[in-house]
Amino acid sequence: MTSEQKERTPLNEALKKLTVALCEQGFTAGTETVSVTESAGRITAVPVRAALNVPHYNASAMDGITTRAELVRGASDSHPVTLSADQYTVVDTGDPVTETHDTVVMKEYTLPGDGGTIQVTRAVPQGKNIRPIGEDIKAGEELLETYVRITPAAVGAMIAGGVNEVSVLKRPVIGFIPTGDEIIPPGRTPAPGEITDFNSSVFAAMLREWQADVRLYPITPDKKDLLQTALAKALDECDFVLLGAGSSTGRDDYTVDIIAQTGTVLAHGLAIKPGRPTIIGYKDTQPLIGIPGYPVAGVIILREVVKPLIDLWYHGWSEPRCYCDVALAEGIKSKPHLEEFARVHFAEEDADPPLAVPHQRGSGSISEYMRSDGILRIPVGCDGYAAGDVVTIELLD
Amino acid sequence: MTSEQKERTPLNEALKKLTVALCEQGFTAGTETVSVTESAGRITAVPVRAALNVPHYNASAMDGITTRAELVRGASDSHPVTLSADQYTVVDTGDPVTETHDTVVMKEYTLPGDGGTIQVTRAVPQGKNIRPIGEDIKAGEELLETYVRITPAAVGAMIAGGVNEVSVLKRPVIGFIPTGDEIIPPGRTPAPGEITDFNSSVFAAMLREWQADVRLYPITPDKKDLLQTALAKALDECDFVLLGAGSSTGRDDYTVDIIAQTGTVLAHGLAIKPGRPTIIGYKDTQPLIGIPGYPVAGVIILREVVKPLIDLWYHGWSEPRCYCDVALAEGIKSKPHLEEFARVHFAEEDADPPLAVPHQRGSGSISEYMRSDGILRIPVGCDGYAAGDVVTIELLD
Repeated sequence: MTSEQKERTPLNEALKKLTVALCEQGFTAGTETVSVTESAGRITAVPVRAALNVPHYNASAMDGITTRAELVRGASDSHPVTLSADQYTVVDTGDPVTETHDTVVMKEYTLPGDGGTIQVTRAVPQGKNIRPIGEDIKAGEELLETYVRITPAAVGAMIAGGVNEVSVLKRPVIGFIPTGDEIIPPGRTPAPGEITDFNSSVFAAMLREWQADVRLYPITPDKKDLLQTALAKALDECDFVLLGAGSSTGRDDYTVDIIAQTGTVLAHGLAIKPGRPTIIGYKDTQPLIGIPGYPVAGVIILREVVKPLIDLWYHGWSEPRCYCDVALAEGIKSKPHLEEFARVHFAEEDADPPLAVPHQRGSGSISEYMRSDGILRIPVGCDGYAAGDVVTIELLD
Repeated sequence: MTSEQKERTPLNEALKKLTVALCEQGFTAGTETVSVTESAGRITAVPVRAALNVPHYNASAMDGITTRAELVRGASDSHPVTLSADQYTVVDTGDPVTETHDTVVMKEYTLPGDGGTIQVTRAVPQGKNIRPIGEDIKAGEELLETYVRITPAAVGAMIAGGVNEVSVLKRPVIGFIPTGDEIIPPGRTPAPGEITDFNSSVFAAMLREWQADVRLYPITPDKKDLLQTALAKALDECDFVLLGAGSSTGRDDYTVDIIAQTGTVLAHGLAIKPGRPTIIGYKDTQPLIGIPGYPVAGVIILREVVKPLIDLWYHGWSEPRCYCDVALAEGIKSKPHLEEFARVHFAEEDADPPLAVPHQRGSGSISEYMRSDGILRIPVGCDGYAAGDVVTIELLD
């Protein structure tokens, strides 16, 4: 049986099975309380309500004087009104307006008089130039809904509203165990047959962009007992565990045994390209994913399997993905029984629509992925696209 | 003279003056060397070239055997060719192909024979199923240009290409000194007239999103000697210094004196709304910006003045801004002598074009900004827009 003929689960089906299984187990993000001043970028776990009115006092909106509107009725340049020292208070913008006063006259319409008096050259109605209590925010008002990202402005609104701490979703801790006798850490010169481990650094950078914390484990050789020990440690320390699943036919069978002995395997082999040797499993509430060793396959599985799990963790909150319609400069064929994620780069980005070139299949190196501008998803049932076809791509970085 | 009548410098003119002055002083980002494994998100300072070929050896692209093409010429299911033990080597994907062999036969087309022999059922040409040295990356090849952001994939390509360290632009260190007798730190209950400092936290979060490091200084009261001491310390420790410039007519005059005594003031008062009381200055290569105290004015000045300076620091590299065409649900008036940055929110985001409501002017609270979806720039010379006009807004978060 060739790898092509093995049973392959559609991506959506595998993800649905995993989602159902995890939810049955009670998969959910924990929450933690953080200082509002350090909360930017976090996801709210509960609605956030203001503790204070903003302004929390009647505030002057101008530099000038506070007084009572009835005292300056009819004032004008030709008929200024003189106020005695006890009838007004000089204020700067933001200063409180005391209860005995009900209006603010701008500095420009006042002239100092004798003996502490002041001349007012313009009449102002009650409430003029005053920011009343609660104008911006009312105490008890909902500032933020549940499961939204806290923006810099939201940090400001919470502090202004007297909120000092906020309950947010914990960041998922995601562990990655690189595996393989031929894998060596970065910094050494590789001998023939040796491959420097870059997947760890690539995956860590991607996962951090998606608001996860990352634990990278040492490279584990292809020995069952060592892999089992490493997996047990990672399950102890992480919310999700990703395990290098190898790139050869034999290797992923080997990894799948380890995962099956520890938890449950829901799918082994996905009907996608690249990314076939993926293993979808879990233990209790912890996703346990075997990631193919081929660089682009690994990156695609992180985007298409692990990212949706992070979105699930965050109750559906997700950084928006950016899409763009492009015309294909060349055709691309696809096997109708597979869902394909082809890489493309822009040939003419300023054209309307922009012109994009699909990459030759079978490359799949990290440098090829680095040079791509977007990903073209070719669904199951589609045998590809012709040159000139207008398609939607997802933009990268 | 009212604040409205004061001399106000157009934003572009002030920025241009500052850019010219800083460049004459030799304003430029420093560089530092970091480990490639920790370089994601940084901006390259020099072109990055591969140190190694990738693959760095001729690698099998399949599980199977390596052999010489001439030995399996004519092989087929009906006429298998038998190879002796010294004529082939069993390989997994990624294993080296030694110099004596020149092709790879897939496992599927081999059958084990007697005495270490193997039967091959398909002929393969020279080079078949081999990833030759340098196929993905050639030693010396440029992987990254100068002044580009290092993506996760670029980290992988550098590690694969034997690059262990990379020269990147230092992150600018930006200091903010909140000022004002009425400003208190978060966490205390404010008395009437007191304002809790949220600008520090808002600005820090924004600046971090723009790849800057932030130093927040204690709230400094409106006392010249204290402000001068705080400014001297910040200039010593930071690349840029931002100073609370107050929101009242008197306060920003006060701040401008401090900046003028320390460095050079290029503009005091900008022809923009909000953001008039901005001070644009520098000392040697250090931008020295007085930020208005009004929340939205401060945020707009960070976006329109400080962000361009960070872009200049990063030699033009910048996170892309996102724009969107919208139809205005209501008209908005603007003074033609001012450049206005009006906030809008979506009324119907799914309409084509989406429908957006401009916010009432004069609000400018942080909660108003938090609830806006985009910023509508109304240029100088334009007196506003009518309901139904289609305009371009910059999307927020």
